[in-house]
Amino acid sequence: MSKIKIAIFGGSGYGGSELLRILLAHPNAEIVFVTANEHAGKTVTSVHKNLRGFTDLAFQKAPEDLSDIGDVDVAFFALPHGQALHLIPRLPGKVKAIDLSGDFRIDDAEIFKKYYALEHAGDIQSKFVYGLTETNREAIKTAKYIANPGCFATASLLAVAPMVKSGLLTGQIVVDAKTGSSGSGIKPAANTHHPQRMTSFYAYKPFSHQHVPEIQQHLAQVGNFDQKLVFMTHSLPVARGIFASCYFETSVELTNEDLANLYQHFYEDSFFVRMVEGSPDINWVKTTNFCDISVHSSGRNVVVFSAIDNLVKGAAGQAVQNMNLMFGLDETTGLKLVGTNP
Amino acid sequence: MSKIKIAIFGGSGYGGSELLRILLAHPNAEIVFVTANEHAGKTVTSVHKNLRGFTDLAFQKAPEDLSDIGDVDVAFFALPHGQALHLIPRLPGKVKAIDLSGDFRIDDAEIFKKYYALEHAGDIQSKFVYGLTETNREAIKTAKYIANPGCFATASLLAVAPMVKSGLLTGQIVVDAKTGSSGSGIKPAANTHHPQRMTSFYAYKPFSHQHVPEIQQHLAQVGNFDQKLVFMTHSLPVARGIFASCYFETSVELTNEDLANLYQHFYEDSFFVRMVEGSPDINWVKTTNFCDISVHSSGRNVVVFSAIDNLVKGAAGQAVQNMNLMFGLDETTGLKLVGTNP
Amino acid sequence: MSKIKIAIFGGSGYGGSELLRILLAHPNAEIVFVTANEHAGKTVTSVHKNLRGFTDLAFQKAPEDLSDIGDVDVAFFALPHGQALHLIPRLPGKVKAIDLSGDFRIDDAEIFKKYYALEHAGDIQSKFVYGLTETNREAIKTAKYIANPGCFATASLLAVAPMVKSGLLTGQIVVDAKTGSSGSGIKPAANTHHPQRMTSFYAYKPFSHQHVPEIQQHLAQVGNFDQKLVFMTHSLPVARGIFASCYFETSVELTNEDLANLYQHFYEDSFFVRMVEGSPDINWVKTTNFCDISVHSSGRNVVVFSAIDNLVKGAAGQAVQNMNLMFGLDETTGLKLVGTNP
Amino acid sequence: MSKIKIAIFGGSGYGGSELLRILLAHPNAEIVFVTANEHAGKTVTSVHKNLRGFTDLAFQKAPEDLSDIGDVDVAFFALPHGQALHLIPRLPGKVKAIDLSGDFRIDDAEIFKKYYALEHAGDIQSKFVYGLTETNREAIKTAKYIANPGCFATASLLAVAPMVKSGLLTGQIVVDAKTGSSGSGIKPAANTHHPQRMTSFYAYKPFSHQHVPEIQQHLAQVGNFDQKLVFMTHSLPVARGIFASCYFETSVELTNEDLANLYQHFYEDSFFVRMVEGSPDINWVKTTNFCDISVHSSGRNVVVFSAIDNLVKGAAGQAVQNMNLMFGLDETTGLKLVGTNP
Repeated sequence: MSKIKIAIFGGSGYGGSELLRILLAHPNAEIVFVTANEHAGKTVTSVHKNLRGFTDLAFQKAPEDLSDIGDVDVAFFALPHGQALHLIPRLPGKVKAIDLSGDFRIDDAEIFKKYYALEHAGDIQSKFVYGLTETNREAIKTAKYIANPGCFATASLLAVAPMVKSGLLTGQIVVDAKTGSSGSGIKPAANTHHPQRMTSFYAYKPFSHQHVPEIQQHLAQVGNFDQKLVFMTHSLPVARGIFASCYFETSVELTNEDLANLYQHFYEDSFFVRMVEGSPDINWVKTTNFCDISVHSSGRNVVVFSAIDNLVKGAAGQAVQNMNLMFGLDETTGLKLVGTNP
Repeated sequence: MSKIKIAIFGGSGYGGSELLRILLAHPNAEIVFVTANEHAGKTVTSVHKNLRGFTDLAFQKAPEDLSDIGDVDVAFFALPHGQALHLIPRLPGKVKAIDLSGDFRIDDAEIFKKYYALEHAGDIQSKFVYGLTETNREAIKTAKYIANPGCFATASLLAVAPMVKSGLLTGQIVVDAKTGSSGSGIKPAANTHHPQRMTSFYAYKPFSHQHVPEIQQHLAQVGNFDQKLVFMTHSLPVARGIFASCYFETSVELTNEDLANLYQHFYEDSFFVRMVEGSPDINWVKTTNFCDISVHSSGRNVVVFSAIDNLVKGAAGQAVQNMNLMFGLDETTGLKLVGTNP
Repeated sequence: MSKIKIAIFGGSGYGGSELLRILLAHPNAEIVFVTANEHAGKTVTSVHKNLRGFTDLAFQKAPEDLSDIGDVDVAFFALPHGQALHLIPRLPGKVKAIDLSGDFRIDDAEIFKKYYALEHAGDIQSKFVYGLTETNREAIKTAKYIANPGCFATASLLAVAPMVKSGLLTGQIVVDAKTGSSGSGIKPAANTHHPQRMTSFYAYKPFSHQHVPEIQQHLAQVGNFDQKLVFMTHSLPVARGIFASCYFETSVELTNEDLANLYQHFYEDSFFVRMVEGSPDINWVKTTNFCDISVHSSGRNVVVFSAIDNLVKGAAGQAVQNMNLMFGLDETTGLKLVGTNP
Repeated sequence: MSKIKIAIFGGSGYGGSELLRILLAHPNAEIVFVTANEHAGKTVTSVHKNLRGFTDLAFQKAPEDLSDIGDVDVAFFALPHGQALHLIPRLPGKVKAIDLSGDFRIDDAEIFKKYYALEHAGDIQSKFVYGLTETNREAIKTAKYIANPGCFATASLLAVAPMVKSGLLTGQIVVDAKTGSSGSGIKPAANTHHPQRMTSFYAYKPFSHQHVPEIQQHLAQVGNFDQKLVFMTHSLPVARGIFASCYFETSVELTNEDLANLYQHFYEDSFFVRMVEGSPDINWVKTTNFCDISVHSSGRNVVVFSAIDNLVKGAAGQAVQNMNLMFGLDETTGLKLVGTNP
């Protein structure tokens, strides 16, 4: 097939960096242009030095007139919240779009406003499909616009969705989630200052993280979801990785084997979900598109652990996985990134 | 006052290292001897190089005849589980003892056997007082034998005890706890191998950690405890620190202010518990005897975060805090260790 | 072309791990078997969990009778020093071999004995070609046996060789080299114990590292080398990466531009050497086969910095690079591993 | 004795943080005020959360009129380069001053201008004594003004000074120095951004670091110094610590024992210099005022390794050590900070 022609809006952050890393080596992808307003004119490799030897691309300013962006099949948006909202509606009709921000993830305008302090872009919101590939494949295949899930939402939903779908839940769901420092982006800040961060672990945004409504909304699409969700975010002293510990109460006793069967069935066609024994470890998924999951029970209590790389399965990798489906490719194309030990 | 004469059994591990660091600078302490069978004859500073300049002590073998250990007022035991059990009963009657292992923490012989695969030492068990200083001060002051709490148990109990005592709990308690690598001890092992550990986060011992019965037993002493406790342990890629995220449901709605008042009251005489805003961070308690705690509510859900240094408040520091009380000293004597930034 | 049939002796360590990571994705490679005596019978992915999803191979014991190892074109040896020495001479005549240990790197039997406390394997030593690809390409293409360079030697030689070849040196050469913890192998030890290593930096083996004679021997092949070499090794608190700071005195003043031209010319056909501005950083080469180099002068003093991943360009990557040449492939085949930011 | 009354100018950075940590626990010190213009009005513990429980001090703005700063015996300046230069000349005559910046370290106005792009403050420069305690004790005891050494200069000079004084040097001196991330200060920046720094090692400022002239100037005071000094700085992925590898050529062969005797004699009255076997390790000096040194020879080559904590012996600790001498105290008063293992 001819190559998919790709534009990347916002190529200088970590999301953009990972999109470039993956798409430059993707057998069916051709990057037409990549924007980064504050680095316009500089080579991509002057910012992402890991890419030296792989590309001569330079960053350019985002075009003023989005109705004429040349021969582009799909545009990725890896911009801060609140920007894609104004850009995607102005794209030519033939251009598909995948947004890695939170701008199109929340369908309810009131809830969106509450968590993001932003207004919906308008009718276009209804055309967005939530891009959690493993739970939404069929809709993604025919989607024009994708709201790519948040990193915490991805790790949490992949662990929680099979339990919700099982219909066996009672009581509350508690999700205790932890992320690496790259989740805060490429811009230096006090909480990512190395001298302190390397020996830190702390919680943030108790009871108020913006991924809560995103998780709730999608769980209601996956099954009959009426549990209370308690979701808490913490910061890990590593660069990459999200680990979610998800606590459930069930209406009947389940064995470890029951749980393993439930999850294996749910993910039987999902290359990127690996059911593991013991516990997942962010070490084994770093730089890859995998989500490792383990399941454990004790009477009517269940805990499910999941681990992803926040920048890959939690962002750029999943975005490309969705692109693959939107263009009729196998979802693993260009995404069989092998992790390392150590 | 004359100095407290001290013997340390097991001085070559991290617990022993921290006992030495603290007691060598303690104004009322004099170390009579320190044992380490495999390092017998070597200087303490050949193992704990941080202590160079502060001591000429050498490790010796543990005496065969414990009934004659010289002029010792108190013996600390920082040995692997299953050793103090056989040693403390053989001490002279006048010698007090503080055990940092799990050997005397569990009063119920059946439960002890289940979690530790060991038999109780006999009647002496009933003479042991649980050494969580902040909740058990009066008993500690007059105790002869102290079962010093586990590191996870300390972080968890200090966060959970005020809620249990309040009588406002309903539903389950979920404690999601994370520890640094020094919690695994000074002996190298696969899970503390640097090339992998520095980029790892994983869970271990789901539903089966030996601190569970210890926490349950003490909560029942603190208040009317009949909640189910779900307790989960994880490994952090730092050397020092435990962080516990504790999730509660309450029978009435509580505000953040209600919670703050509850905890401030509970800990009003406790120098080493610091109520903080935002979130504790292990970075601010490392190398100190502090436990930092923050409290947060949302309707009838509550989350309490606590952070300690596993080797200090979670082991050697608390042991010395208990010694201070047993010998009539202010509990902070020699323990006002100041942390660092960074 | 038909695939190259490969045996790996010693697949359970970090060198083996990286050989597997690279060769499983190599378009012209087929792994026939992989040995690991202590893990015989276990799946590869039970040890190298990063490879889950990519292979069903299991480790097997090394065959007793090496004269019949089936249809194998080339055997890699990633064993501790002193083992390949006894194995490679027993291979069938048609099987090529690439040894990642130090067993065949030193041509002088006396020097070999001094640094390794081992005897040469015999005449076969003369058939070994030193596998520093960039300086020895032509010999490698026709070699049957390759002594793959040490990790420190690779980083040092790539930085020093162009200076030696220039004939402009006077005075001593000082190489101050630093390595990550994976250089000590997969087996846990005191110096790679996470609680201490994460905050450590120290020197080791002053004036006696076994890579000294290896570097000297190859420099004498590259040019007219009669300088004294002072070589010092240090340990970094990261998993991957070697950084070498190489100090020279020159007989004439050189500008930065002179140096840049000299190195660019020397490496003009070498995809895996990237000349960089400022300084290399191990961060930009980790998990890749690149060696990044920068050059700086001040009067008649020169410093050259180089950075590699010790497990890739310093071991398994370079081994595969050599294999590619030995089998007529482009040396970059299967080795365009892209690094990450972060 | 009555307490020394102290003002701290610039208390919100890492230097100020360490001055506060040390002086709050110093038996003879009383902090009168501490400034931090951008945090004026905030409590010290809102910035340095490690100090919670130890002080109620709040930051204030630096006084406009420095001629009236109340009852102050000595003022510490922990400000960015170029500020103390304008402040110290305006202090009342009776106030001693210790400057932790580079403003008064270079006696030669031309060299100062070249490296700092600043003009000398005027005649006051001649009243400053260089505060490397171990080599300059007598002058410090009677000094009114102290130029506290740079962190790299401290680690380098303590390793190099005995060799220079020995008169046995020939050839060049190469100092390969490495620092932790706290050396870049408390303000977040690209080079201290955690996601990248945790896996980084790189060189910076080749042949141009501002500590070069400081080191040269003081070596000329210590002995007959006419060697060329090649000094190179690198960045380590730890928070604290400087490690210097110092390479020498000597006019005669020296044994390890010769070197050990030379250094032990040089430092026989210096509590804070510890001669160690094997190698120093920043792990063993972190958070302390020690400088650990080891010495090694091979023929007429010598390497000396030194390790300090850049914020303590490399800044605040040495500043207090100097204060102690200036006020007739034992130099170790309040400075016997014990390090930790791990």
